[in-house]
Amino acid sequence: MNAGKRALLLVAHGSRLPEANTEVAELTNRLREVSGDRYEIVTHAFLEIAKPDIPTGIDVCVAQGAAQLWVLPYFLAAGRHVRDDVPALLDQARERHPDVLINLCTHLGAEASLPELLLQLAEGGSA
Amino acid sequence: MNAGKRALLLVAHGSRLPEANTEVAELTNRLREVSGDRYEIVTHAFLEIAKPDIPTGIDVCVAQGAAQLWVLPYFLAAGRHVRDDVPALLDQARERHPDVLINLCTHLGAEASLPELLLQLAEGGSA
Repeated sequence: MNAGKRALLLVAHGSRLPEANTEVAELTNRLREVSGDRYEIVTHAFLEIAKPDIPTGIDVCVAQGAAQLWVLPYFLAAGRHVRDDVPALLDQARERHPDVLINLCTHLGAEASLPELLLQLAEGGSA
Repeated sequence: MNAGKRALLLVAHGSRLPEANTEVAELTNRLREVSGDRYEIVTHAFLEIAKPDIPTGIDVCVAQGAAQLWVLPYFLAAGRHVRDDVPALLDQARERHPDVLINLCTHLGAEASLPELLLQLAEGGSA
């Protein structure tokens, strides 16, 4: 019986614009509210430019008691970052934390219900 | 009574990776299927790098009979592109097409139901 915590790590690219990184932090806060008790830990990390970086984000989750970690790539396209860079960082994290189950989720752009969400945006009207 | 068509234009950044642009085209196809009869025209355009560009995308919608056009920014962050570049292109398009109602929708990253969609992704499991 594994009594460790379930953690959700939202992984974004990271921007030179501080407000873009703040948007990710705010989204993480909303994600934490919406997730209820499904994850004891909900946090975020950045691939480049901004902090915390992904290895740090994972290590913080583990230090807080995560036994299962879902890594959620907040990316629209399956480019090099999604295909190569994030998986490589997860492989390294699995070596550091062999007792933690680290799952890589599908990136946002491939989510099946994205078209419905885009239609909601369109129906919401003007920005 | 306006008998013109309703058009939805998904606007993405555009990538040097052809497969990333193909992902946008495929998403547009799914969007067209899901939208049913809500929009007579559903298509996409790119801000940079890839074709068609946004002015061309708008002009094609108008040439096909669009009287109302919803422009949907497929962007995660409210950076310079979302705040400045896309609105400037729409202002120019409104001058070219004064009889067409051109609406700018909220960008994807600001959609209120995004956290729920991200949780769906996490629950979908590994990539």
